[in-house]
Amino acid sequence: MKLLLISNSTNAGEEYLRYPLPEIGRFLQGVREIVFVPYAAVTFSYAEYERRVQARFAELGIRVRSVHRAGDPAAFVRRAEAICVGGGNTFALARKMQQQGLMQAILRRIRAGVPYVGWSAGSNVCCPTISTTNDMPIVQPESFRAIGAVKFQINPHYLDANPAGHAGETREQRIREYIEANPRRWVAGLREGCMLRYDGGRLELIGGRPMRMFRKGVEPFEVEPGGDLSFLL
Amino acid sequence: MKLLLISNSTNAGEEYLRYPLPEIGRFLQGVREIVFVPYAAVTFSYAEYERRVQARFAELGIRVRSVHRAGDPAAFVRRAEAICVGGGNTFALARKMQQQGLMQAILRRIRAGVPYVGWSAGSNVCCPTISTTNDMPIVQPESFRAIGAVKFQINPHYLDANPAGHAGETREQRIREYIEANPRRWVAGLREGCMLRYDGGRLELIGGRPMRMFRKGVEPFEVEPGGDLSFLL
Repeated sequence: MKLLLISNSTNAGEEYLRYPLPEIGRFLQGVREIVFVPYAAVTFSYAEYERRVQARFAELGIRVRSVHRAGDPAAFVRRAEAICVGGGNTFALARKMQQQGLMQAILRRIRAGVPYVGWSAGSNVCCPTISTTNDMPIVQPESFRAIGAVKFQINPHYLDANPAGHAGETREQRIREYIEANPRRWVAGLREGCMLRYDGGRLELIGGRPMRMFRKGVEPFEVEPGGDLSFLL
Repeated sequence: MKLLLISNSTNAGEEYLRYPLPEIGRFLQGVREIVFVPYAAVTFSYAEYERRVQARFAELGIRVRSVHRAGDPAAFVRRAEAICVGGGNTFALARKMQQQGLMQAILRRIRAGVPYVGWSAGSNVCCPTISTTNDMPIVQPESFRAIGAVKFQINPHYLDANPAGHAGETREQRIREYIEANPRRWVAGLREGCMLRYDGGRLELIGGRPMRMFRKGVEPFEVEPGGDLSFLL
């Protein structure tokens, strides 16, 4: 299994997919073409999403082929050299992936060793469920179940504080609700600018900031980049 | 129909339910007892939630009876003098309300003129769906459909900006995704410290800040407290 699960496509003020591109390039070394899943796009078209990603992946010499063009998307995935799922709205993404049978198809490819890259919603759907997304539930998917390539949940775009004066729940409070309702799952609060790489049986945090870990009955704690994550496997 | 739909229980730094209490008192004038729905509580017990709300409503001379104590919660709702649904996690709330048949039971009571007070998740579930909640989908409800006493969606705790340097979607971007996927619905971005009161066929915004309105094909605009909201009815 080879996974690269990225918190966010783009850091504030930077160009689209700029910061993770070198790591994506190392991860996809030797890959000439990826199958791209654009279904998290809501306010712009799938074709536009494919173009944006193609523009950046061209710098790596990788061709991007979006699954929305395929007559049989699941069959298209089964022939993929590598799979990439982009961010956007997690509910829209999960719904369309479920309608097209892509959750199962992608899981099988991942287990066969095909590299998987996701960012934001694309990292969420690699988890057992979409239940730790930050997104608004704008459409109802068939189920909250997702690909389930890993056994833990990722909360992408993890952030520590609310804007000053705002009384809504903090991210930590939201995740504490999740673990209360789902006591057997770990949640990885993956801060922006960070990613998880799984390769050769080893899980690694890459980036400039620690990751905050949550599980019911365990006081939340931080793991530094490069730190031991074997407890998640 | 009599509704009081409050953005948030508590402003930052204030006591629980302090700011909306005078308005709740005016709205519930003559009511001696309310049926309370505590199912949005996740990290504390329903009994604890009932106690917190009872402590505040005692100042209004109103007794609070939580629906979780009833053998037949839907029957309990059918005998209610007034209904109050508290905030917390909207998915946990919707799930339990659906399991107990409370969405339909409460809608019937609202249509019969029984006053309804909700805050945060309790305002969300009064809308056609829970699809404009800010909450994390920690559990899967039967459906995203909710009470549907009003025809528009509320986004409670509406806020204008992200914390500095955070690249995740702003609330406005999230709601723009919602209206793209749900082009016939209005969304009311209800800022903290504000509430909507529906009484005598008239809908009114109460509070110190304007409300931001969204609908597909319409440039988002602000409505001031006391402004015309007849387009939502």
